Amino acid sequence: MSPDGPTFDPIAKARDNWSNAGWGDVADGMVAVTSVMRAHQILLARVEAALRPFDLSFSRFELLRLLAFSRTGALPITKASVRLQVHVTSVTHAIRRLESVGLVERIPHPTDGRTTLVRITDIGRSTVEEATNTLNDDVFADIGLPADQSRALVDAIETLRRSAGDF
Amino acid sequence: MSPDGPTFDPIAKARDNWSNAGWGDVADGMVAVTSVMRAHQILLARVEAALRPFDLSFSRFELLRLLAFSRTGALPITKASVRLQVHVTSVTHAIRRLESVGLVERIPHPTDGRTTLVRITDIGRSTVEEATNTLNDDVFADIGLPADQSRALVDAIETLRRSAGDF
Repeated sequence: MSPDGPTFDPIAKARDNWSNAGWGDVADGMVAVTSVMRAHQILLARVEAALRPFDLSFSRFELLRLLAFSRTGALPITKASVRLQVHVTSVTHAIRRLESVGLVERIPHPTDGRTTLVRITDIGRSTVEEATNTLNDDVFADIGLPADQSRALVDAIETLRRSAGDF
Repeated sequence: MSPDGPTFDPIAKARDNWSNAGWGDVADGMVAVTSVMRAHQILLARVEAALRPFDLSFSRFELLRLLAFSRTGALPITKASVRLQVHVTSVTHAIRRLESVGLVERIPHPTDGRTTLVRITDIGRSTVEEATNTLNDDVFADIGLPADQSRALVDAIETLRRSAGDF
């Protein structure tokens, strides 16, 4: 329970503080950034709750999903890192966790001896399919946004991603 | 460098995969969620880069900011946790880090012996003012979104927060 009652809104409060401190010109940027932080917190909590029965974090799920969608079920680790836009050390950490429970395996590249591939196993495939169905039903089917707001959200983030060099 | 060239877009690719797998009805929710995850990643990287010279993470900055804006510069730890919408163990961890470099101190509540307050120090105040100026200039002044898209983003997230019980 909030000491300020049910309508307490830390982001609106922060906007007021920012404006009152004479930073009115940057308050909108501050609110946009803190809003994204809070949205991430809300959605990640839902996603991780849905994945908990599968002992998967969202990042491990994403790696399995990438492999399951790939043509051969295997990718060079560096390529997985680029595709997921996460650092190769994070991917390596995820691979270790997934390998320890038999969902992926590391194999040498068939022709390039310096490259290691990560390959999804049969158990990995069935796990990610079940986990995907759960995520689809519990989270993605209804994230709590009408279609037009969902589209506006994605469009705005696409602009942001463009400014960050994503495309 | 992406092996798929400069226009490679993992979120659009994921949307295609999701639709092709027969999950077309939930692909929009999946794209909204992964877009928020990516936006968070982009903005957090900018914020943490701006805060690095101050040896502050965003969560430690937010705690300092909250204390600096409070009437007396001190709050019960549980109240700080509610205001920041983060678990009390995370706040306690942040307090320990800030205390070790002299930016906050823990003091007993003047009238309630069971409550501990966290109070910002003078060095904490000057540090958070400098860090705020840097964040305002380097991040909040221009997040890479036109005003209408920034507003649409915040509005959509407000709807999401409502669905999550924030208000």
